[in-house]
Amino acid sequence: MDTFTRLESEVRSYCRSWPTVFSQARGSWLIDEAGTEYLDLFAGAGALNYGHNDPDIKAALVDYLATDNVIHSLDMHTVAKRDFLDTFEQVILRPRGMNHRVMFPGPTGTNAVEAALKLARKVTGRTNVVCFTNAFHGMTLGALAVTGDSMKRGGANVPLSHTHRMPFDDYFRTGVDTIDYLEAYLADAGSGMALPAAVILETVQGEGGLRVASDAWLQRLSALCREHGIILIVDDIQAGCGRTGTFFSFEPSGIVPDIVTLSKSLSGLGLPMAVTLIRPDLDVWEPGEHNGTFRGFNPAFVTATAALERWRDGAFASEVRRKADLITTGLQRLADRLPEGEANVVGRGMMQGVELEPGGLAAQVAAQAFERQVLVETAGAADQVVKLLPPLTISDAELATAFERLTESLDAAIADRDDLALTGMPELQTA
Amino acid sequence: MDTFTRLESEVRSYCRSWPTVFSQARGSWLIDEAGTEYLDLFAGAGALNYGHNDPDIKAALVDYLATDNVIHSLDMHTVAKRDFLDTFEQVILRPRGMNHRVMFPGPTGTNAVEAALKLARKVTGRTNVVCFTNAFHGMTLGALAVTGDSMKRGGANVPLSHTHRMPFDDYFRTGVDTIDYLEAYLADAGSGMALPAAVILETVQGEGGLRVASDAWLQRLSALCREHGIILIVDDIQAGCGRTGTFFSFEPSGIVPDIVTLSKSLSGLGLPMAVTLIRPDLDVWEPGEHNGTFRGFNPAFVTATAALERWRDGAFASEVRRKADLITTGLQRLADRLPEGEANVVGRGMMQGVELEPGGLAAQVAAQAFERQVLVETAGAADQVVKLLPPLTISDAELATAFERLTESLDAAIADRDDLALTGMPELQTA
Amino acid sequence: MDTFTRLESEVRSYCRSWPTVFSQARGSWLIDEAGTEYLDLFAGAGALNYGHNDPDIKAALVDYLATDNVIHSLDMHTVAKRDFLDTFEQVILRPRGMNHRVMFPGPTGTNAVEAALKLARKVTGRTNVVCFTNAFHGMTLGALAVTGDSMKRGGANVPLSHTHRMPFDDYFRTGVDTIDYLEAYLADAGSGMALPAAVILETVQGEGGLRVASDAWLQRLSALCREHGIILIVDDIQAGCGRTGTFFSFEPSGIVPDIVTLSKSLSGLGLPMAVTLIRPDLDVWEPGEHNGTFRGFNPAFVTATAALERWRDGAFASEVRRKADLITTGLQRLADRLPEGEANVVGRGMMQGVELEPGGLAAQVAAQAFERQVLVETAGAADQVVKLLPPLTISDAELATAFERLTESLDAAIADRDDLALTGMPELQTA
Amino acid sequence: MDTFTRLESEVRSYCRSWPTVFSQARGSWLIDEAGTEYLDLFAGAGALNYGHNDPDIKAALVDYLATDNVIHSLDMHTVAKRDFLDTFEQVILRPRGMNHRVMFPGPTGTNAVEAALKLARKVTGRTNVVCFTNAFHGMTLGALAVTGDSMKRGGANVPLSHTHRMPFDDYFRTGVDTIDYLEAYLADAGSGMALPAAVILETVQGEGGLRVASDAWLQRLSALCREHGIILIVDDIQAGCGRTGTFFSFEPSGIVPDIVTLSKSLSGLGLPMAVTLIRPDLDVWEPGEHNGTFRGFNPAFVTATAALERWRDGAFASEVRRKADLITTGLQRLADRLPEGEANVVGRGMMQGVELEPGGLAAQVAAQAFERQVLVETAGAADQVVKLLPPLTISDAELATAFERLTESLDAAIADRDDLALTGMPELQTA
Repeated sequence: MDTFTRLESEVRSYCRSWPTVFSQARGSWLIDEAGTEYLDLFAGAGALNYGHNDPDIKAALVDYLATDNVIHSLDMHTVAKRDFLDTFEQVILRPRGMNHRVMFPGPTGTNAVEAALKLARKVTGRTNVVCFTNAFHGMTLGALAVTGDSMKRGGANVPLSHTHRMPFDDYFRTGVDTIDYLEAYLADAGSGMALPAAVILETVQGEGGLRVASDAWLQRLSALCREHGIILIVDDIQAGCGRTGTFFSFEPSGIVPDIVTLSKSLSGLGLPMAVTLIRPDLDVWEPGEHNGTFRGFNPAFVTATAALERWRDGAFASEVRRKADLITTGLQRLADRLPEGEANVVGRGMMQGVELEPGGLAAQVAAQAFERQVLVETAGAADQVVKLLPPLTISDAELATAFERLTESLDAAIADRDDLALTGMPELQTA
Repeated sequence: MDTFTRLESEVRSYCRSWPTVFSQARGSWLIDEAGTEYLDLFAGAGALNYGHNDPDIKAALVDYLATDNVIHSLDMHTVAKRDFLDTFEQVILRPRGMNHRVMFPGPTGTNAVEAALKLARKVTGRTNVVCFTNAFHGMTLGALAVTGDSMKRGGANVPLSHTHRMPFDDYFRTGVDTIDYLEAYLADAGSGMALPAAVILETVQGEGGLRVASDAWLQRLSALCREHGIILIVDDIQAGCGRTGTFFSFEPSGIVPDIVTLSKSLSGLGLPMAVTLIRPDLDVWEPGEHNGTFRGFNPAFVTATAALERWRDGAFASEVRRKADLITTGLQRLADRLPEGEANVVGRGMMQGVELEPGGLAAQVAAQAFERQVLVETAGAADQVVKLLPPLTISDAELATAFERLTESLDAAIADRDDLALTGMPELQTA
Repeated sequence: MDTFTRLESEVRSYCRSWPTVFSQARGSWLIDEAGTEYLDLFAGAGALNYGHNDPDIKAALVDYLATDNVIHSLDMHTVAKRDFLDTFEQVILRPRGMNHRVMFPGPTGTNAVEAALKLARKVTGRTNVVCFTNAFHGMTLGALAVTGDSMKRGGANVPLSHTHRMPFDDYFRTGVDTIDYLEAYLADAGSGMALPAAVILETVQGEGGLRVASDAWLQRLSALCREHGIILIVDDIQAGCGRTGTFFSFEPSGIVPDIVTLSKSLSGLGLPMAVTLIRPDLDVWEPGEHNGTFRGFNPAFVTATAALERWRDGAFASEVRRKADLITTGLQRLADRLPEGEANVVGRGMMQGVELEPGGLAAQVAAQAFERQVLVETAGAADQVVKLLPPLTISDAELATAFERLTESLDAAIADRDDLALTGMPELQTA
Repeated sequence: MDTFTRLESEVRSYCRSWPTVFSQARGSWLIDEAGTEYLDLFAGAGALNYGHNDPDIKAALVDYLATDNVIHSLDMHTVAKRDFLDTFEQVILRPRGMNHRVMFPGPTGTNAVEAALKLARKVTGRTNVVCFTNAFHGMTLGALAVTGDSMKRGGANVPLSHTHRMPFDDYFRTGVDTIDYLEAYLADAGSGMALPAAVILETVQGEGGLRVASDAWLQRLSALCREHGIILIVDDIQAGCGRTGTFFSFEPSGIVPDIVTLSKSLSGLGLPMAVTLIRPDLDVWEPGEHNGTFRGFNPAFVTATAALERWRDGAFASEVRRKADLITTGLQRLADRLPEGEANVVGRGMMQGVELEPGGLAAQVAAQAFERQVLVETAGAADQVVKLLPPLTISDAELATAFERLTESLDAAIADRDDLALTGMPELQTA
């Protein structure tokens, strides 16, 4: 590991929590060079919904590489891109009554978000964008401006502007409908909030602590946007591609966003890829007005096309929902090991977790889990949530193993905490 | 092509100039589904320096995919990343006396630039960044703010700020040393230019019209930055990875930038990958202060490591310089077909071109070239440069073919122009 | 009036509602050149708390001008400035336990606000400033950024930034304590609201519709600012100088702001003058870091000193409070002429009004009042409040006359409205 | 002086250089409370072009105050405002072929500049404003953004944006025509400079070191603005009102700016007043879109009207030009006391000075002058210019006295400097 210490920037992060060198990976498992197997409940931060090295998807890739098919093509037409577009239309868009145009904005989520914001501002001629507390949309300046986390925002080292931050659904935990706030500001010419170009949100806040927007809240938000001519952008980069039990996370609510961003698990195998979906009448881009070198990475089109096979019927989605229920049950059992009010199950579908007190215990659980060969991360601005983001393809047996080990991890973390409280020792560093 | 018209966003661009569907690619050639072969003088906008489907690099990839090696790993340690880091240190950094740290900021150039700007601002506690006329650094808001092109900038639809735009080397074409301007502004507490965190530049402006910073200009700039405690960032995304005849474009000048960005041809095979190289004492990132889902795309580490084999001795670089001379000669012959003063050879290494009058002729040459199965693009804010960016591996015979066809294309474009002038017909649409 | 139409900019405003040419003024009365006397319930938008041409204050001015006393002195020391400072300390600051430093930031309110914001940002090294819905702080870019009104803000024609807009006390009219909102954002590292340099507010929103911050709300806000190291700025430009029944509007709440701005009635006679009061340990200005040509307008120092004589004992303030009660009673009677829920008395002290439905009726009342020789203005983003801002020196008899005429005006406006509703005619233009 | 130390903010500045308490003032003289008479070569930073307490102007004021004429009137019509407008049209605008509308933006220069920038951005729908090195336009955020001085700008403690800083005439002192620079940026779609809403400049930079824009440079600038549809704003706050020998400073060049700002000496007696003059077709303000409490300060209208009497014929202007020549001669003699190249006469009309080396000597001259009862200031970002800004009414005898004392002051400052150099003592603090 000398190599990393000597040569890699201090910005590296996950490798600090999981100090080993990984080599192999299949399904729900990562294997390090010593051969130790880790159960991966993080799945590439949601980029590996189909698990590591899914055989079908990988076969498509290997097959594509077997001859001199074009790999890199900027935004030229290619056979691989056409196949992806046709399949995406047939399997995803048309069955959902959507006729959105597909933009390839560069192969990372933050590119997709930047493109969405640019376009919404162009269409409306307005600069302000409403975003929400605890949102996460990316690390480049435009996307960072709508992100909530203060540490990430501080990294910009310039003021981030042209946004208005509204409280997310149930932000105050008092039952107040926070759409009332947005509505009041929009109705009041003295509110100081300029009429926004767009509202951008995640329906489940992946990094922000697994907070969930209810269907009713989404419906009111969508109606309010329509009423005021505001573009509704759903950033479905983490919650989309089946993570919550439907391909798009917003399907149960019945809303149809004007713009949708997808990335992470879109390519199916962990290859960089992203799209921005655009209601056709909003597709007012000039040719080349947004560009990027890696918009046309054909191997990702190929694996993405293969991954879409999962969505030709409803079986895969049903399985996700079934396993989501298992996860809810498992997490509730974990939560029940703590006194009432100290732990709550949060999230939706296969992005759920248990929210503990801010600062400390959740990180200890994750650390204990690593010692038990489980990779699990925390979420939330105070790292207060133990977050489960397993491959959607995880087996029931693997899930059972996961909860066994997590139970031990939680118990160990609680015991450590209580020991510390007794002996008055300084709190462990958990950064 | 219906699929593209129906489903892809209007933002698509290169496919409009080259209206066919590509399927296969090898070396300097792209082949469409009808089997027509095109000589590719654009090389993925510089992302394919080693040509399409280079057998050695591709073999490394296929080999890696043959077993369940880890594909996607966020910023965890992996064997593939370690191999890349060790090789990069051994083959690139150490022989050049550099001890920069390697940051993986996300796999696109604009990610690398955003990370560089964030860090420079963090280190210095200043917000202003000096950038240059006709610069191109990316499409996300931070990188776009230092980009010069008005159409691209307009796409932001918000004001782009925290920058000061200086004239690039020989901008006024009057012999004035434009470093004098920067120096005067820095020396004058009344200039209105805040002491910058950083200066960012390309040594050869790839998109901006192949303008070249001279060694002397770079040296003065570097000295001025040192004197004032300003971070010097060289964006070597297009001009690096051997394009100008050395691995880094700035090597002949002797300067050592504080931060360097690389992407495009870094992975060797067109896979998305980018790094930000950081002088070790400037590596003050907090863990995770900048992150991204696709920072750990191991197949790209593998192909990048394979591509670095070219750089173990000086033979490859020598060949690039030899072919660069052939290109200069060829372009000069093209330029000589026009009256004196109407055409100039511009650029350096294997990113050279011929600059024609603004608006029109260069685009016509490119259009004529496509009819002769040559893919060549224009550059510059007025599309005034016919730009050659062939694979560095192009053969002498292919170069000869290229110039044959370009000569015909130029002649045809001139003939059309002169016909139009005679008959008084409206100018052809060339957008 | 030809002169004004021909020569004065379209930006002129009050003269459109009150289309006559004024010539003389005394006490609560303005007299036009035809000799018609108007009862002035607007008092220079609060700049004439002591009425027009107050004899005592004016005598001091005439006396000062009788010899060659210095008129304009930049920020040099003068006898007149010293007299003002000594008197202000003795009469205002010391009795209230305040030891604030006095800054002369230029003679308009917006100058005082800009200086306050600059200093708060300098002291804290932060850029963000929390401001409130319906706030009014001035027309220059820094002050405008914290102002709420969308029409005024739109005048900037650049995005206004470095602020966070919070709901004022009882903004949602649901009993929700809006300090909870601010507190939640401050406590949450993911809220997206940067720790602010300052909070700026008016205790009674003069332009924003006479909304009143309760003492409890102010106390919680003050405590929250202290806890987080946030500078508390009270903009007392309209509500200060006795308007609410104490010299500073915040006195009843017991809070002591870190910075206070005063202007409008400070000079007593309508002469341009403003100060920014600064807690001494925050007075970290460099000499000349903020300057301005008219910081040292000695005639205003002289009249301001004379005006402070009113504050040597509590008699004047008592009278203001007594008359404030008369106004409350009078306004309540007006409100009672409308069906319950259609009219509410709002405001505090001698800045009270009656809030009607948005758009229309209030402006009609003001128009009818002008026909009855009463000058009265509307307030609020929808011009929904008939606002009384009479001289504090208005007599009981004048107040009685005022309410007589306002009653007639309201009745006439209601009658007109009802007529229109009956006849189906288009609504009167009231802009 | 205890009072000031105890009660006035640290921001106070001129009083530090001139540590006495002034009491009386007439013509070119300020008299402190001890009776010491100081020859005032600073004239309220240009606000007292007609000297202190000019008898004619003051008589008009005293007369106006003798009855209950209206003092404060917001933007209502008054007799005093009508008189001013009619006189301004008759005496200033019409003879110069101008038909600009008069806006009263608030009584300080920075208000006038903010209004000009707002309007230019509104008319054009663009945000960028070109401004110049060493410009001074005011202290509020909009005006500060176009100001050059780094210390003043730093006071904002937020980034200042929406501007592009161009080099002023002869900035590089190499004979390069800096309009070439602006023209090149405007012509180049890749320059990164957005098409500006406006260009704002002073024809003689009062605070910035008395740099002068030549007539030819102004003419080219004006033509360039016209060609590109850019609003040309001349900030004539310091150089206008006769300071350079014509009422507007730009008259000799023949250009007619689209917008002109005036303040400082406009009221004639040092009363706060400012106007923004607007080409009638650009006067697209909404009523009240920019406002302010002290827009209607009638005593200033009265004194301004009286001051305009000086401009009914050309005699006053001729006298200014005659005395300007005396000043040039006097300054040249001063400059000649230093070795060639160490001192240059700079400026135009009655705003001239002698430029010395940066940092030190000029401030020492000013300090020595104070000891000789002369009030004179330095200008320039490095305080390198001894700046003469006497009342335009100064007598020849007073000028002779001024130069006598300045000669002694210069000699004393040189002697001190040379002594220090000899004895190796640390340099005197001159801040």
